[in-house]
Amino acid sequence: MDEFHVIDRFFRPLARGFAGALELRDDAAFISPPPGMQCVITTDMLQEGVHFFGHEKPSLIAKKALRVNLSDLAAKGAMPHCYFLTLGLDETITETWMADFAKGLEEDQAMYGIALAGGDTTRSKGTISISITAIGLVAEGKMLCRSGATPGDHLYVSGTIGDSAIGLALLKQELSLPPLMRNTPIERYYLPQPKIGLIPDLRYANAAMDISDGLFQDTRHLLEASGIGAEIRLESIPVSKAMQMVKTLSPSQFLPLMGGGDDYEILCSAPVSPGEHWTEIGIITPEKGLRLIDAAGSIIPAPSGYQHHLGRVVGP
Amino acid sequence: MDEFHVIDRFFRPLARGFAGALELRDDAAFISPPPGMQCVITTDMLQEGVHFFGHEKPSLIAKKALRVNLSDLAAKGAMPHCYFLTLGLDETITETWMADFAKGLEEDQAMYGIALAGGDTTRSKGTISISITAIGLVAEGKMLCRSGATPGDHLYVSGTIGDSAIGLALLKQELSLPPLMRNTPIERYYLPQPKIGLIPDLRYANAAMDISDGLFQDTRHLLEASGIGAEIRLESIPVSKAMQMVKTLSPSQFLPLMGGGDDYEILCSAPVSPGEHWTEIGIITPEKGLRLIDAAGSIIPAPSGYQHHLGRVVGP
Repeated sequence: MDEFHVIDRFFRPLARGFAGALELRDDAAFISPPPGMQCVITTDMLQEGVHFFGHEKPSLIAKKALRVNLSDLAAKGAMPHCYFLTLGLDETITETWMADFAKGLEEDQAMYGIALAGGDTTRSKGTISISITAIGLVAEGKMLCRSGATPGDHLYVSGTIGDSAIGLALLKQELSLPPLMRNTPIERYYLPQPKIGLIPDLRYANAAMDISDGLFQDTRHLLEASGIGAEIRLESIPVSKAMQMVKTLSPSQFLPLMGGGDDYEILCSAPVSPGEHWTEIGIITPEKGLRLIDAAGSIIPAPSGYQHHLGRVVGP
Repeated sequence: MDEFHVIDRFFRPLARGFAGALELRDDAAFISPPPGMQCVITTDMLQEGVHFFGHEKPSLIAKKALRVNLSDLAAKGAMPHCYFLTLGLDETITETWMADFAKGLEEDQAMYGIALAGGDTTRSKGTISISITAIGLVAEGKMLCRSGATPGDHLYVSGTIGDSAIGLALLKQELSLPPLMRNTPIERYYLPQPKIGLIPDLRYANAAMDISDGLFQDTRHLLEASGIGAEIRLESIPVSKAMQMVKTLSPSQFLPLMGGGDDYEILCSAPVSPGEHWTEIGIITPEKGLRLIDAAGSIIPAPSGYQHHLGRVVGP
């Protein structure tokens, strides 16, 4: 396979319908935000052996790479517009692999209403590297930052928390659950669900971010950026049936898994509830720092979540 | 080293002065093109062992990664505005390496008037991956494409052609030149010089691209995109003293090296000369295809340049 063949066969179809991509026949793409809109840009790199195992279906790897970026855009209140893909492929990559990888992107483009705008495909030595830069659009000055939380706000999260961490723990055989309880968490680990549908709900939020490093660590980031604090009631955090079972069967793993990361839900700080898909988990306080309160009303230590050691390898 | 330390110590200083970067403390950056301007976006990935050897000074690797992108922006007529960096680092990377890498970016940011707007730093297995997405600004609808060349235009190139290919051939010991002739080509191979200063010259051009795959191959790309042809006079192509010496000492290598790539000069098609830094090398013709004409007036085969096989490894 040469680069031009890969572009022709697999990537050019993904750029159809996005005029600024120039059919991937030029050196660059152009983007003209409509009047009154600005670009929101985020980028994430996934490495084989670090962020994915390598044996997953290529379409699943492609979707994960795209979705972790779309999740960031959603939490910033930005509608996904297009994305750029750079791909380092080792010599074992086949046409079949590429076809399934492109199929994953195609399916997600249809699901999220975006297109490929440009990229670069190159050889890598030994492992696959995938870097995606996603661009969204938001009304001028309306990007939601981590820094806007205000005393009087409440903290809200979408969905349920900790399932993806349960999925990873199951895959790593650090946790066991009954067979019927295994699939959903594992699927959540493999395939983030960016909360694009919740963007309209965020119009009253003062601050927001997606939960990728873990609820407690990400809350701390939001609080630090806003220069304030919060109280979170552990019992208020929404959990799935799998997490309820972890609490019963393996109580020592409950709290670390709640803060384990890869949720790709949205955490926001707002004066009123954003709507029916959100759960209030606590309040913003002028006093700095995160205080996690248990059912008895005591402050308990909140685990730190994903540590971002450059040496850490995720997976079995 | 953890990711937050790397961001704090090395990358946050590079984002100073770019408001939309939010001090790299958020999940995304924002860009608001001034009224009447649009974004031009390009991305390139560099892999250790493929695009660089690994033993170069980290500052040189950083500059090369940034400059190949800036070269694309320059050829599109877009002033560089900011860039995003994703970095996959293997476990051998030290603070000293990171410091020199960041120093290279800092120096180039000052030279080209841009800032880091965002990124992602992660672990990679075994080799370094660097992906940069660069964003430039151009007046709405004024991005120069490959597709605008018109009969009546002439073809122009900036600088001299083939020196970087000579540099690589010297490093690979496929070519020998007297010691005094070696340094300039090798420097050109290691460190592209994006032609930002020539952007104003491009205002009368109908089509442009940077020369990265080799003059002849890139000319073919421009002609195909424009749906026309060209005649290039070999004797008109501007060459350095090193290339003149190759022509004398090793005539069989002359033509392949002229089309060897990594020039990072600009090829443009324009009705009049863009200015003193440009050399006219031929004319656009309605008849399709590239015809290369030698000193005797005969059509000779033009070599194809860099082939983009995903299996190809550059370097000794």
